[in-house]
Amino acid sequence: MTQSIQLNPRRVIDDLKELHALTGNADGAQRVAWTPTWDQARAWLRGKLAELAVEVETDPAGNTWATLPGASPRTLILGSHIDSVVNGGWLDGCLGVLAGLEVLRRFSAQGKPPVTVRLVAWAEEEGTQFGRSCLTASAAAGGFNPAELRSVTDKNGNRMPDVLNQWGVDIETASNAAQQLKDAAACLELHIEQGPVLESQGLALAAVVGALGVERHLIHFTGQTAHAGSTPMPMRRDALAAAARLALEVREIANRHHGVCTMGSLTAHPGIVTAVAGGCDCTLDQRHLDAESLAAMWADAQSACQRIAAEEKVEVSWETLYQIEPVLFHPDLIELCAEAVAEISGTPQRMPSGPLHDAVVLAKSGLPTAMLFVQSLGGLSHTREENTRDDHLELAVQAFDRLADKTAVWIMK
Amino acid sequence: MTQSIQLNPRRVIDDLKELHALTGNADGAQRVAWTPTWDQARAWLRGKLAELAVEVETDPAGNTWATLPGASPRTLILGSHIDSVVNGGWLDGCLGVLAGLEVLRRFSAQGKPPVTVRLVAWAEEEGTQFGRSCLTASAAAGGFNPAELRSVTDKNGNRMPDVLNQWGVDIETASNAAQQLKDAAACLELHIEQGPVLESQGLALAAVVGALGVERHLIHFTGQTAHAGSTPMPMRRDALAAAARLALEVREIANRHHGVCTMGSLTAHPGIVTAVAGGCDCTLDQRHLDAESLAAMWADAQSACQRIAAEEKVEVSWETLYQIEPVLFHPDLIELCAEAVAEISGTPQRMPSGPLHDAVVLAKSGLPTAMLFVQSLGGLSHTREENTRDDHLELAVQAFDRLADKTAVWIMK
Repeated sequence: MTQSIQLNPRRVIDDLKELHALTGNADGAQRVAWTPTWDQARAWLRGKLAELAVEVETDPAGNTWATLPGASPRTLILGSHIDSVVNGGWLDGCLGVLAGLEVLRRFSAQGKPPVTVRLVAWAEEEGTQFGRSCLTASAAAGGFNPAELRSVTDKNGNRMPDVLNQWGVDIETASNAAQQLKDAAACLELHIEQGPVLESQGLALAAVVGALGVERHLIHFTGQTAHAGSTPMPMRRDALAAAARLALEVREIANRHHGVCTMGSLTAHPGIVTAVAGGCDCTLDQRHLDAESLAAMWADAQSACQRIAAEEKVEVSWETLYQIEPVLFHPDLIELCAEAVAEISGTPQRMPSGPLHDAVVLAKSGLPTAMLFVQSLGGLSHTREENTRDDHLELAVQAFDRLADKTAVWIMK
Repeated sequence: MTQSIQLNPRRVIDDLKELHALTGNADGAQRVAWTPTWDQARAWLRGKLAELAVEVETDPAGNTWATLPGASPRTLILGSHIDSVVNGGWLDGCLGVLAGLEVLRRFSAQGKPPVTVRLVAWAEEEGTQFGRSCLTASAAAGGFNPAELRSVTDKNGNRMPDVLNQWGVDIETASNAAQQLKDAAACLELHIEQGPVLESQGLALAAVVGALGVERHLIHFTGQTAHAGSTPMPMRRDALAAAARLALEVREIANRHHGVCTMGSLTAHPGIVTAVAGGCDCTLDQRHLDAESLAAMWADAQSACQRIAAEEKVEVSWETLYQIEPVLFHPDLIELCAEAVAEISGTPQRMPSGPLHDAVVLAKSGLPTAMLFVQSLGGLSHTREENTRDDHLELAVQAFDRLADKTAVWIMK
């Protein structure tokens, strides 16, 4: 029985492969929230949990919880999300769920832990159908607004309340999921980096210090549609050229403030080869870990928009798509995470997270939270090409387990 | 009967309004080739021609011809196209047809002219459904290739041969329209400028010296799709940023060579706010009246593509969408046109045409051809807002009539 009380990182990889064989296909992972394949993944997870002496329940937001009671009711939460995007990767979300499962197995095999340990598989993090990221973690931790969500539809016109109802989730009562956090003392999430930084540094793991704040805006430039053949260059009011200038200028803004700025989409109107574009809509995504720097980047972008518009003789306006303040994880838990990373991989690497995560929503609610990243090959995610080296996955499970132990001790301090 | 032998420019405006009332709606002109409304316009024109002692026929390409036999069989052709784009303007094409009709009326009322005078209403110039500009003038003047056209479909999958057949045009025999040009000695077309140049110069009319050559290419940049939050700026291979640099650089190229260059469309992939674009397709339209300068502009654009791609660490490739050499009108006829413009409006203004026209196809075939432009308000065309001042329309008809007389004399020299 020695094996059963030891952590088995290799088993996490086997579990991930088993889940992917069940719920993925040639195009990638297909665990899109509120679909039969996603529900299959939830059922499969319940099957795995049935092998342990834990109580399993589904909360009013559709999140799956497994509870291993400890000597203290004070609770350590481990987990990530079970859903994927369409044609997603085999690791995004479920790595954190299944690493949490493995740590739960280890705790369970060692008898009653000092603190209560719970595994959570958040039902929906990706916002695939309805564009609401971290939806069900928000139902538990705050930010879930039924009044706003009642009228949300998917691209086929299906209403969110109707779709969720089919899976037993009533948006009017989903926030009762908050009950799940009443004894929560700390929350830990392992996730793939989904970016190229660790690979470029030759590192496997990092403690995440927080999540970048986001300023996301849609910028409209309005010039004058004109014939590409009959309109001399000096007489043009070219909205696409104005957007092009902004695309380049936001890179300078990002570099100046040590943040990131992205124009990922640009749509010209009429958008034909024979016309100078009279209109151009482009998206701007700006992120920074420091709130003041983030505000300065957006202020700089607004100035650039206005200056470019004046110089190009076009009009400019914008609308906010999304804004979130930077969120820092708990300093003690970051420290413990960096320790665990150093003990397992040699370097106490720390880095911010660009993407949002369920752990960010929990941290924002005031719950002490930390997050561990493992390297992503090629920085790729949200594609079937998403991958991480097996030895890195094993290191990640080991570091996550060690972080859980350290955090349990921290909770009881 | 004095009035009947004098040119009546006001009648052209009345005719244009009558045609627009019959075939336009609140969204603009709807004389899209190979549609019932377009056929209504053709029938209406035949009704107008029935009032004159002219022979009217429809050629195998669907073009309408009216012949006023002269003392000589050598023929002066006047006209433009009867079709419009969807939601087009009230002047584009039909101004030239109805001004030609008025000049034909004037010749007709004065007895047998020295040369044969023919009015043509080209069936399709716009290429609205099948993307083939100047289709039916090409059937008469060359460049109409049934082998290539057999497989062309509209956006609904309708085959060009089937659609044209419904209107009595067999693409296999449409080129027999060339018979219509056998006695042709010169061809004249009046058209709205469709650009802002004359308005900006405070001028009503210009003699067109030729049509700009066109190099039209689709440029593909391929970088690496990456998360907008997790990918540091120096690690990006941003295809949209590369396209943005090109959009700005082609303006410099245009200015350096005194031509025009336009990026009118840009499509990023995946084209979402949260991703650095891994791919970008953009269109490049370059035009110049001088063939060598045009070639130099395209060579410069290719160099720019390669330099930008190297600097941005992306790949670049391109495909040709369309190429046409510059076409110059006949020097004698340009001279006569400039004379007519000066006599009627005071300034012997000359300018090139950016857009293609039926007259360009005729000139390319070797037929002595000239073209007269009248100012477009705001440079607008291909929209219901297209307009020209009434007094300018009247000046245009007068100048066109004078040019016809001068050309008739030139033919008999």
